[in-house]
Amino acid sequence: MVGGGQLARMTHEAGIPLGIRFRLLSDTPQDSAAQVVSDVVIGDYRDLDTLRDFARGCDVITFDHEHVPTEHLRALEADGIPVRPGPEALVHAQDKGVMRAKLDAIGVPCPRHRIVADPADAAAFAAEGGGGFPIILKTVRGGYDGKGVWFVRSEEDARDPFLAGVPVLAEEKVDFVRELAANVVRSPHGQAVAYPVVESRQVDGVCDTVIAPAPGLPEERALEAQRLALRIAEELGVVGHLAVELFETRDGRVLVNELAMRPHNSGHWTQDGAITSQFANHVRAVLDLPLGDPRPRARWTVMANVLGGDYPDMYQGYLHCMARDPQLKIHMYGKDVKPGRKVGHVNTYGDDLDDVLERARHAADYLRGTIVE
Amino acid sequence: MVGGGQLARMTHEAGIPLGIRFRLLSDTPQDSAAQVVSDVVIGDYRDLDTLRDFARGCDVITFDHEHVPTEHLRALEADGIPVRPGPEALVHAQDKGVMRAKLDAIGVPCPRHRIVADPADAAAFAAEGGGGFPIILKTVRGGYDGKGVWFVRSEEDARDPFLAGVPVLAEEKVDFVRELAANVVRSPHGQAVAYPVVESRQVDGVCDTVIAPAPGLPEERALEAQRLALRIAEELGVVGHLAVELFETRDGRVLVNELAMRPHNSGHWTQDGAITSQFANHVRAVLDLPLGDPRPRARWTVMANVLGGDYPDMYQGYLHCMARDPQLKIHMYGKDVKPGRKVGHVNTYGDDLDDVLERARHAADYLRGTIVE
Repeated sequence: MVGGGQLARMTHEAGIPLGIRFRLLSDTPQDSAAQVVSDVVIGDYRDLDTLRDFARGCDVITFDHEHVPTEHLRALEADGIPVRPGPEALVHAQDKGVMRAKLDAIGVPCPRHRIVADPADAAAFAAEGGGGFPIILKTVRGGYDGKGVWFVRSEEDARDPFLAGVPVLAEEKVDFVRELAANVVRSPHGQAVAYPVVESRQVDGVCDTVIAPAPGLPEERALEAQRLALRIAEELGVVGHLAVELFETRDGRVLVNELAMRPHNSGHWTQDGAITSQFANHVRAVLDLPLGDPRPRARWTVMANVLGGDYPDMYQGYLHCMARDPQLKIHMYGKDVKPGRKVGHVNTYGDDLDDVLERARHAADYLRGTIVE
Repeated sequence: MVGGGQLARMTHEAGIPLGIRFRLLSDTPQDSAAQVVSDVVIGDYRDLDTLRDFARGCDVITFDHEHVPTEHLRALEADGIPVRPGPEALVHAQDKGVMRAKLDAIGVPCPRHRIVADPADAAAFAAEGGGGFPIILKTVRGGYDGKGVWFVRSEEDARDPFLAGVPVLAEEKVDFVRELAANVVRSPHGQAVAYPVVESRQVDGVCDTVIAPAPGLPEERALEAQRLALRIAEELGVVGHLAVELFETRDGRVLVNELAMRPHNSGHWTQDGAITSQFANHVRAVLDLPLGDPRPRARWTVMANVLGGDYPDMYQGYLHCMARDPQLKIHMYGKDVKPGRKVGHVNTYGDDLDDVLERARHAADYLRGTIVE
């Protein structure tokens, strides 16, 4: 796996019972995954020779993030190394312009959008929809967790996105009631499984809480979202976990917001709430093993991200949360605490959504230090 | 953790979400746990200098097996390294003579037993009970999985156990209807949790299948077994997981067979069948963290050991089992297949015990190669 973040850490954890030998390419030995994996290569994933050395002896390459240059992935494939997801699929998660063009071509509903050339063109885009500003501008490459995304209220406001010299995608500001995620896993020979559609609550552009399944979502809309995600996985040739982030609009439609082709924050609940976790199924898919059952094990599961707060030492909070709630499932990433940094998450599950939500939120808030009792 | 077997492998797996930095002392880099752990020291646990070098920088030492010499553990403690379970507790899992004497002293029901000097003394022991042969002879140290245990039918039959020059314990052959295990976890400050009492089925002295909870066990007998295990943990000062293997006798008593002070085969079902696994609770206990909820997540959970068969390559069986049963939980240890060697286990769970048992047995038998459809 290329990339030493928490997704690789949790993928290794899920691979251990499958008997998998896991090799990691990591920037530093201190990275989240490098702390727990036996076979670690330290190097820069942007360097093709490093990638080639790393890949020698691997049965298959997969990813903790989408940042490996597409041309390097093609070179590895040309060397005979299976790359999953492959570059032709992964480009849709790397480049939002390519993604929007493809989803348009296969008839998947998206927010109104087009590539814009400069602030004046962005203003023209805003006017075209009849609603004017605000609009959303995104650099087509390099963004995540709210980075590379701008909420733009005027033409003057629209300058920053163009400074990086990367093409800029304009999108309408969708009038959504909430965000959903439809997560699926697909294997090379085309087997696919769909997880229950979840509700994802964001704070400041960062995923905060995920509720599985999405409360009150009509069954037909959930099935529509699952079908959409399965169709995207198939049409784009995705192998592994695909997260389809969706807007549920006020007028009852679902529109695709983003795609991620790797285990995803909106699927962390599956570690404790599904029969087979997203990490285990990602491993099974990239190795072309039969996929595991994606169904839930509990009526409700809630995931809450643990962000770093002002206190670098979380140990007292960690003790408190375990003592308060012996059913709490804590997942720490081994990262130093910095304000706002994702350093872990908690999962809770049960029959009573209010209770399950309260327990998850309490633990995440206590660990961050925003509450003290 | 000292020892590179599958128990260390699965303890590391359970420690990852807790954010634990795990250091392993392993005989070879090929050992089950050494394949998946980042921080591995290769060395001989019988050598005190090796243990001391390994322990430097560790917050606490725990064990994959009971074979570290008691005097080495005392030396580590004298160096200021917390050893959990400590030598005063662990000696009861290392020496069956010490264990029996202690259980007698605290009034825990055991099979009739005494240390015997030679085959004639074994015959005298057999006669003392009024029943004569057969009896069981055990070397007080060094046995596991049926090794170091003899089923003895006559005085002539009783010679082998004395050849090693280790004291020999004689025990009555208990008329039991089945074997049970009462597993508990205790932390240094005395918090303890009890898992449901399970039924353990042995084949040729090796654990074959575990059913959780033990079917048809009256609640009062289950509670008696749990109380017994909790009392043993407290009286012996155990820290970490304690497995108490029990005989359920034809006349309705429970007698203690063996003790193990580490994660144990009879607790593997907890990985998929309990809210908190034995491995996670062992880690929490040795680090003096609050313990997790030991209650079951399913009505029935069955664990079946996967033993090596005549075919060294299990890959086709592995594919078959995953495809046949997407809910099957496979746990492979990364070991080379040898006939009769434990190379993994499977867990199944659900509401229908017959179905849950059939699925686990089918997978274990198919992986071993004793069935082909």
